[in-house]
Amino acid sequence: MMTEILDSTLRDGMQGEGVNFSKADKFKIFTALDNFGVDYIEAGNPFASHKDLEFFKEIAGRRHGNKAVAFGSTVRKGMTAEEDECIAALLKAETKCVTVFGKAWDLHVDCILGVSLEENLRMIESTIAYLKAKGRKVIFDAEHFFDGYKANEKYALEVIKTAEKAGADTICLCDTNGGTFPDEITAAVKAAKKLLSVRIGIHCHNDNGCAVACTMAAHKAGATHIQGTFVGIGERCGNTNLSTVIGNLQLKKGKKIVSSSQMQTLTDTARYIAEVANIKLSATTPYVGSGAFSHKGGMHADGVEKNPVTFEHISPDVVGNERKYLLSEVSGRAAVLSAIRRFDSSLDKNSPETLSITRKVKELEEKGFQFEAAAASFDMLVMKELGQFNPHFHIDYFKIISARDKNGKTEKATALVKIKVGENYEITADEGYGPVNAIDMALRKALKVFYPEVENMRMSDYKVRVIGAGISTAAVTRVLIECTDGDDVWTTVGASKDIISASVTAFIDCLEYMLHKNDKKRKKLKNK
Amino acid sequence: MMTEILDSTLRDGMQGEGVNFSKADKFKIFTALDNFGVDYIEAGNPFASHKDLEFFKEIAGRRHGNKAVAFGSTVRKGMTAEEDECIAALLKAETKCVTVFGKAWDLHVDCILGVSLEENLRMIESTIAYLKAKGRKVIFDAEHFFDGYKANEKYALEVIKTAEKAGADTICLCDTNGGTFPDEITAAVKAAKKLLSVRIGIHCHNDNGCAVACTMAAHKAGATHIQGTFVGIGERCGNTNLSTVIGNLQLKKGKKIVSSSQMQTLTDTARYIAEVANIKLSATTPYVGSGAFSHKGGMHADGVEKNPVTFEHISPDVVGNERKYLLSEVSGRAAVLSAIRRFDSSLDKNSPETLSITRKVKELEEKGFQFEAAAASFDMLVMKELGQFNPHFHIDYFKIISARDKNGKTEKATALVKIKVGENYEITADEGYGPVNAIDMALRKALKVFYPEVENMRMSDYKVRVIGAGISTAAVTRVLIECTDGDDVWTTVGASKDIISASVTAFIDCLEYMLHKNDKKRKKLKNK
Repeated sequence: MMTEILDSTLRDGMQGEGVNFSKADKFKIFTALDNFGVDYIEAGNPFASHKDLEFFKEIAGRRHGNKAVAFGSTVRKGMTAEEDECIAALLKAETKCVTVFGKAWDLHVDCILGVSLEENLRMIESTIAYLKAKGRKVIFDAEHFFDGYKANEKYALEVIKTAEKAGADTICLCDTNGGTFPDEITAAVKAAKKLLSVRIGIHCHNDNGCAVACTMAAHKAGATHIQGTFVGIGERCGNTNLSTVIGNLQLKKGKKIVSSSQMQTLTDTARYIAEVANIKLSATTPYVGSGAFSHKGGMHADGVEKNPVTFEHISPDVVGNERKYLLSEVSGRAAVLSAIRRFDSSLDKNSPETLSITRKVKELEEKGFQFEAAAASFDMLVMKELGQFNPHFHIDYFKIISARDKNGKTEKATALVKIKVGENYEITADEGYGPVNAIDMALRKALKVFYPEVENMRMSDYKVRVIGAGISTAAVTRVLIECTDGDDVWTTVGASKDIISASVTAFIDCLEYMLHKNDKKRKKLKNK
Repeated sequence: MMTEILDSTLRDGMQGEGVNFSKADKFKIFTALDNFGVDYIEAGNPFASHKDLEFFKEIAGRRHGNKAVAFGSTVRKGMTAEEDECIAALLKAETKCVTVFGKAWDLHVDCILGVSLEENLRMIESTIAYLKAKGRKVIFDAEHFFDGYKANEKYALEVIKTAEKAGADTICLCDTNGGTFPDEITAAVKAAKKLLSVRIGIHCHNDNGCAVACTMAAHKAGATHIQGTFVGIGERCGNTNLSTVIGNLQLKKGKKIVSSSQMQTLTDTARYIAEVANIKLSATTPYVGSGAFSHKGGMHADGVEKNPVTFEHISPDVVGNERKYLLSEVSGRAAVLSAIRRFDSSLDKNSPETLSITRKVKELEEKGFQFEAAAASFDMLVMKELGQFNPHFHIDYFKIISARDKNGKTEKATALVKIKVGENYEITADEGYGPVNAIDMALRKALKVFYPEVENMRMSDYKVRVIGAGISTAAVTRVLIECTDGDDVWTTVGASKDIISASVTAFIDCLEYMLHKNDKKRKKLKNK
């Protein structure tokens, strides 16, 4: 049986501390997971959240919308599937596949549900049978299966057998509390495997630091449906980190999960998802962390130079990551090269332009810039270094005033700006909600005298992160700005100790990116 | 055999990206590890670093200085132990116990050392025999043992047998590249166990996300000497996280490692070491993370209220951590109730105060506030609603000016503020890197006239997120501010269309939180 992956970033990941996705975020993450090659994307609970229901309705019509999986529980006690609204909501989501969870630990049946062990079996049976009759593919999440197996083995097995008989397509064994060890997982999965003939899944949490190992152990014991979240976010200590498991399965256990070229986007995909979730991906994250292949010890760095296999378990380029030498400066050139070839295909690894751009990137990264999620800023940088950049405007100066009055009322921020375009100047001012909005308004007001098109542009996202060791309000701030003109979406970066300065730097890139893009379009039209 | 713990934060941990300890840091961490009850503290390489040698000389005279372990390599090729300076440095460190590492993977012997397999055995044998003759306890780190065992089983076993014959007290099997899985570890440790009669150790790295599970597997197979770093820092993806392993061994496998009262300091010890190392401990770290016992889903929160074992694998107080109920759109009144009971235990689910606070939380969440990661702001809100809040100051007004000059140079932002404390006013101004830093500086400057203690407070993290559907610079901005006064860490939230206003709101809560906290302390002292 082919191994299949279900990502639950948009459902179980939402239980993580500080994690909250807007609908736009959900679409972004869905697309990233789809492109990477995940099989199922569990995207929410349509009964608990109306927003989730809306998302499912919208995703249905999109490319690969059939990967979406709606999540819900079994019917509530004493109810039939026909009359329970939570089942109705699951169907309203109109996904091809649904996940329903049911209790597999007798303690929970008694203490949380407050029903008899028989009634719990009936609830599971009738839910699955009903959803199957409605034409859904059904994944049954056997909640707390491993704790249940320890406490009352016979009953836990009865639960999953009931689910199979009712028609479940996949039975996923869940370590909901995250306290089980790999050897215990192996024994319980083997017992389930002996009993069932349908596909078996595994869903772990990391409360004992073993989620990845438990998932690997379950896979070895016969579980071929793997659940987790791409960067491991989730309640308490998080869910199984799929980026680690997928790396392990494909690169170390020879299981084909995605194509090699998709595998090369593992790092980018993980970083992008972390960025959208606004969480800091630890530098030490296996495979995808910025330090996952960093070598500090001189001896280790030397060893890797002689033969990478001496101090690396896999080669970083296979997952789109990079080797770093923390004491010496040797890295990066290959990655930069592949990006700048889009502008000048005659360049190679040793061209002076490649070297100078690599140096410039390093220099800016040390100042807090990061081009990972800011392709538009990277393009502007390359164009500048290759002499292909003509600035459309120059900011002569600006001033912004923010204030709060006696009654605690925030006054609108005001911005004053002077710009130069060719030989012409324009001075103007405007106000806005906060300093960034004020300068955005004033700058575009001045610019549209020369470039009316800037009126169509708007910021679609604005993210701020404080970075660096001595974190405080005086530390370096990195700003990512995403803009759109309706046709395209692009992202730029700025970094500075001053959040306003970082924002303006990124915003200038946004404006220039659009103006250059339009120049190109105009040129194309002319040549036609 | 009693299980013993060797912490290598001060040696292998130093290989982590961005990790660098001063001598003062080393003493702090040494003391914390000693108090917690670690058996051996590997604190540096006296040959590679003169600073390390000095540290060893100084620690020798201190309390429990005999826990210090110096680390070094076997003699270099063609040398005798007597003539090799690296062995001399090891002795000069004057520790009771030393670790020496030697090659156990034939590839390394050939490719890195460039010596014959026999010469490598001689180097190991003579080093250990010499150090034993000098009266040292010797731990032999068999570097790359597991990769060696896979590549050339016979030779890897010959290496460790040689070390035993030469007199090593403990033979530690190392997964230096961090790519081995628990089942492979089990098989190799069992083979070593069969061959050796001395104590066997385990040292893992986390490159496949399995370091903790591998360490647990090795322990089960007979390794009773456990190496790692307390919060998992180390080269690439880090070393085995000892705080997780110690929790697992003692609380889940019934192995006595430290006393119960030491175990209650697990969380504080981990956080303190992370603080000294200047790294951010992930909220999801098992046992010790700030979110390790946080519950968001309303159903999970309800379940834990009924019976904690339903959604927690261990009780948080055993490791000195705390249960948290994250307040979110998804969670219910039960979560709010348990939080406010800390202020008034007479309240129940239907008290008017519970209802009004729940309503207030919802109202603020709709405006963009989010309290799940801002417990201090939540506390202030509850105190206000219960009439337990006395404001320490009032901001009359403030003005902030941000500017960039003709040359594109960002000027320092300036802030002017007027505050009222009781019947007194204070007007002052200050400057900073950006508007938030400027108002932070000015506000504390004004406040310290009345409350000198605010000088000890500093922001330790600052996070910004734009929220809401119509994301743009005019959308709502949510700011989270984390502050510390050295003793405690607390987080507050502000939300507004204006980033400055949101920041100031959160910052006021930070200041009030500290002032209230100190009032309570003063009251306690008075009553004594």
